[in-house]
Amino acid sequence: MIQAGIFGTSGYTGYELAKILDQHSETSIRFAASQSLAAESLTRLYPAGPDLSLIKPEEASLDEVDVVFLCLPHATAAPLAVEALNQGIRVIDLSADFRLKDADVYAHWYGNQHPAPNLLSEAVYGLTEYVKAELPHSRLVANPGCYPTGILLAVLPALQADLVNGTIIADSKSGVSGAGRSPKANTHFVQVEGNFSPYKIGRSHRHLPEIEQGLSLWHQNPPELIFSPHLLPVPRGILSTIYLPIKDGWTLSELRDLYQQAYYRPPFVHILPEGELATLAHANYTNRCVIGLSLAAGTLILTSVIDNLLKGAAGQAVQNMNVMFGLDETVGLI
Amino acid sequence: MIQAGIFGTSGYTGYELAKILDQHSETSIRFAASQSLAAESLTRLYPAGPDLSLIKPEEASLDEVDVVFLCLPHATAAPLAVEALNQGIRVIDLSADFRLKDADVYAHWYGNQHPAPNLLSEAVYGLTEYVKAELPHSRLVANPGCYPTGILLAVLPALQADLVNGTIIADSKSGVSGAGRSPKANTHFVQVEGNFSPYKIGRSHRHLPEIEQGLSLWHQNPPELIFSPHLLPVPRGILSTIYLPIKDGWTLSELRDLYQQAYYRPPFVHILPEGELATLAHANYTNRCVIGLSLAAGTLILTSVIDNLLKGAAGQAVQNMNVMFGLDETVGLI
Amino acid sequence: MIQAGIFGTSGYTGYELAKILDQHSETSIRFAASQSLAAESLTRLYPAGPDLSLIKPEEASLDEVDVVFLCLPHATAAPLAVEALNQGIRVIDLSADFRLKDADVYAHWYGNQHPAPNLLSEAVYGLTEYVKAELPHSRLVANPGCYPTGILLAVLPALQADLVNGTIIADSKSGVSGAGRSPKANTHFVQVEGNFSPYKIGRSHRHLPEIEQGLSLWHQNPPELIFSPHLLPVPRGILSTIYLPIKDGWTLSELRDLYQQAYYRPPFVHILPEGELATLAHANYTNRCVIGLSLAAGTLILTSVIDNLLKGAAGQAVQNMNVMFGLDETVGLI
Amino acid sequence: MIQAGIFGTSGYTGYELAKILDQHSETSIRFAASQSLAAESLTRLYPAGPDLSLIKPEEASLDEVDVVFLCLPHATAAPLAVEALNQGIRVIDLSADFRLKDADVYAHWYGNQHPAPNLLSEAVYGLTEYVKAELPHSRLVANPGCYPTGILLAVLPALQADLVNGTIIADSKSGVSGAGRSPKANTHFVQVEGNFSPYKIGRSHRHLPEIEQGLSLWHQNPPELIFSPHLLPVPRGILSTIYLPIKDGWTLSELRDLYQQAYYRPPFVHILPEGELATLAHANYTNRCVIGLSLAAGTLILTSVIDNLLKGAAGQAVQNMNVMFGLDETVGLI
Repeated sequence: MIQAGIFGTSGYTGYELAKILDQHSETSIRFAASQSLAAESLTRLYPAGPDLSLIKPEEASLDEVDVVFLCLPHATAAPLAVEALNQGIRVIDLSADFRLKDADVYAHWYGNQHPAPNLLSEAVYGLTEYVKAELPHSRLVANPGCYPTGILLAVLPALQADLVNGTIIADSKSGVSGAGRSPKANTHFVQVEGNFSPYKIGRSHRHLPEIEQGLSLWHQNPPELIFSPHLLPVPRGILSTIYLPIKDGWTLSELRDLYQQAYYRPPFVHILPEGELATLAHANYTNRCVIGLSLAAGTLILTSVIDNLLKGAAGQAVQNMNVMFGLDETVGLI
Repeated sequence: MIQAGIFGTSGYTGYELAKILDQHSETSIRFAASQSLAAESLTRLYPAGPDLSLIKPEEASLDEVDVVFLCLPHATAAPLAVEALNQGIRVIDLSADFRLKDADVYAHWYGNQHPAPNLLSEAVYGLTEYVKAELPHSRLVANPGCYPTGILLAVLPALQADLVNGTIIADSKSGVSGAGRSPKANTHFVQVEGNFSPYKIGRSHRHLPEIEQGLSLWHQNPPELIFSPHLLPVPRGILSTIYLPIKDGWTLSELRDLYQQAYYRPPFVHILPEGELATLAHANYTNRCVIGLSLAAGTLILTSVIDNLLKGAAGQAVQNMNVMFGLDETVGLI
Repeated sequence: MIQAGIFGTSGYTGYELAKILDQHSETSIRFAASQSLAAESLTRLYPAGPDLSLIKPEEASLDEVDVVFLCLPHATAAPLAVEALNQGIRVIDLSADFRLKDADVYAHWYGNQHPAPNLLSEAVYGLTEYVKAELPHSRLVANPGCYPTGILLAVLPALQADLVNGTIIADSKSGVSGAGRSPKANTHFVQVEGNFSPYKIGRSHRHLPEIEQGLSLWHQNPPELIFSPHLLPVPRGILSTIYLPIKDGWTLSELRDLYQQAYYRPPFVHILPEGELATLAHANYTNRCVIGLSLAAGTLILTSVIDNLLKGAAGQAVQNMNVMFGLDETVGLI
Repeated sequence: MIQAGIFGTSGYTGYELAKILDQHSETSIRFAASQSLAAESLTRLYPAGPDLSLIKPEEASLDEVDVVFLCLPHATAAPLAVEALNQGIRVIDLSADFRLKDADVYAHWYGNQHPAPNLLSEAVYGLTEYVKAELPHSRLVANPGCYPTGILLAVLPALQADLVNGTIIADSKSGVSGAGRSPKANTHFVQVEGNFSPYKIGRSHRHLPEIEQGLSLWHQNPPELIFSPHLLPVPRGILSTIYLPIKDGWTLSELRDLYQQAYYRPPFVHILPEGELATLAHANYTNRCVIGLSLAAGTLILTSVIDNLLKGAAGQAVQNMNVMFGLDETVGLI
């Protein structure tokens, strides 16, 4: 039995993680901590969820656990990661703190000096399908961001086959849970319902450098990216419509074969039959990434969907844990 | 041309009022004030609305206007009402400050001493259809609450005909704009979407004493009320399903005649044909109250709908202004 | 391993059932039949669901299964039930065919002669919590309707304690999946979104006689019922706000004790702490019925929620199967 | 007073048109026809709308009107247009019948021979802002499709300035009313709510040839288009995120100046301040097209919104009528 601890349990990601681990046959939740909700049950916020008693973060006994999950804001996760690693505990960090390899890039996009730059090179960027060999012996996993997960899984096969010959455009649409549980003007029901809003489009969203880094991790010389997120009036799910200008001579059927082969083994990435497009309903409430392929005007158009709280956060975190601890990748996940 | 001033323009009610007055053929908006948004355009918050420049409340020149609309929180409206009345300006107050006639009842439900108790007897409770004779010579109108408007318009004809012989149950369902524009946990999109929640049911909501007072204003000895509000995952509209135990011997057809007669003249209250039930779609984006009648097990079941921001707030305020100033009741309203 | 067959797999209820049985540790789906979708995979309609191949109903081999689930329209389920029972197979019927004990009442409300009236007395009305003793030796279970489940579970404890002394009013609000998967004008997105509609209120909905029969099954002389369903703009979930006029002298705390005691053992019925009200979020995506209690003006106000597709249909069907076959009641359910 | 007739009044577009014309100060609705709803009031379908009696199309007296609006399916509109023109009545056709100039292209995309090919050259493609000079003396106006309106208004200024030097990508998202009022599987509330779906992406939607034709109407040699529509879970509104690869050397500020100049006069096209992006809330319930500009990686990114039922259909039709009949362009519109 893996003994697990959770920090930041009261946010959407922490809650989803608690739900999965609570049902996970090989894991026991040793503690679930929350700054804001300590001494209450998780059901006060999530009435249909598991009846877990939350503790204050400072009451957490790290020495009882094998792994901790950090569902915390960036800059607050890293110091806790250091502390856990020092005690020999493995860390799966769902914040942005260890995703970017370059501390300067981190400082530029997140507005603070990196709290633990010496760990950046060690951290494994946990896009599970691409790091299965590294995870079993890694101590620190940076769980990818939600947008990067869906976009990288869709783009990498074409990129690795050297097909792409121009700027990549990812037009992404996300459900509101991606904006977090704190009430803000732009998450007010009356503001969101019936509306649809682009934000930080072009090259201005924090996930842009993460995606570009991902492209360069698995390709020598990747093209530039335009990334345009939009807010959808739905609670969860991300669909990215991705435009890849590709080299001449490829048929849609050949492209599908390429993708099928790239994701032959991984249980969670599904390539749709020709003519089918991915919709949120293909992936919501699952740990899947589902990808459809279309071809028009020399452009490979990928439709890629994930549940931002599962494959885009808590689900992939558990998938990473499974591989780290030698379990079947799918335990506790659908 | 009526010169009008608005306080509290940036809330949902203030915005709807500004939209109506901006298009109103007999009114000119002299100023639109907002504490939080001064010096900005209303379009910053409501991008499709009128391009009004907002001023600070303290910059408003009361001496330029004939009437002021107070779209403010309770307790902050009353002092401004006193000031305006002192300068000879008529006041339509959309807060709760002048709705309850008894300062003790007000203090009990709203948690503060009444700021101007000596004005309570003068204030006209502006359920337009029932106070048309008083409005033309009134200085101060307390615009009714949203729930009370839809419930009183539905219940009063049966009550005045002495039909009701037991506890009245009003099971009400409201859109989220009724909760105001400030972001709170219970107005977060992820919390509201796909959900439906009762709150303050029974005899615990602030509108309960207002409705019961309304019943007693127009009937000697009204029955007790149970009032159960619920939050609907829609931006606007209120539907109340109201159960009136009635005396024997009435057919549905006779009850409809009674209601038709009660609302023969008023243009904004519609009684539905037999067999039809009111839905939000009957009244949203209009100043109407639409009422359906059913009869079962000795109980008259009324379905009553209004748009909470229009007939339940800004629309009825303008309807009151129209009558106060001798205009046709319908100017600027649909 | 229980060998199970499903008829009517492509509807919402059939799909939820297939999902549960597919994950159920003690059951194997032997066949999943569908008139409209035969030879296709269930994922064509429900892309994130289990990849089951559907067969034509006439290709189903009844002799391979221990139990069949009928997720069919009324009148088409009964003949199949007869056939299965004749072959010694147990039947859980999710249609309305065996819910009403009186063939004349059935004919009146459903508009056709009952196809198998001689089985009516044998059929167990499967409100699991109240028939646990009978289920293990029953051949034919009539799975209750969605509205009746949530209302009966909430009303029966008070009724059995002889507390109720007047007409019961159940004001119910249901998600759209209750209306079925066939596209109709009243399930069109543009019609439903932002709207809220009462329908068949008073004493005109088919679930009225079923609820009243349920009351009389477990009480000698139950009061009359007013039942007012409404359509909510949400995909799933039912909340019933139920008004029970009760005898004097009961405190809310005593009433809660009564309910706690009534549902001491059953794992799926939860009584909320004093002051809490049930919301859809308490029960959606679970097999729970969650009940809140309030007291006002001599009236016990119950807020009762279920997921109409789970505790109100497929979940309760599996709960019934579990008890019928001697399994723990909770296998495969949350 | 312009005497107007409407065919196809019961669809979403016909209803919006009826609402506008009913309030229009210079127009009188002479008849409102509907095949499916004849002899009923429009309020049966749209309970808050104008109380118009609908007639059968064959009862419409063309000789009483100056203009007819055809809110009909393609192929059924053209024959009626011929009949009206023969009687000297001006025609505004909201179907697709006269949008494409080439009868073969029409036949290819719409699957039927064109019913009146000899009128194609005469028909004015009614993108109002670009044909104001032609409208006053035109007899037949082809009202543009919803997607083409928002995309063409956004792309044309850059195209006409010869800025664009590569494939245009329009990633569009539309509300459900664009799919029409007939209930279908893909407009069922349970299917749409919480979901988001691409459809006919790349070069496969019927509006593709219309947009490309629009580009070539106002530019000699336009680039190729990729057009990817998606279905949003909202009732109305279209947002297109449009990617234009442009020539070097342009700053965002210069681009904004270009757009400001292009839409200096027209009251309905708004260019947002630098840094602001268009959202559905900018245009819904108005006749506006609101456009935001961003610049990234050599690509001009336009966010363009319209209300698909107003500027994308009924609103632009009335705007066209206003110009055709010499009225102020804005009468009856906001």
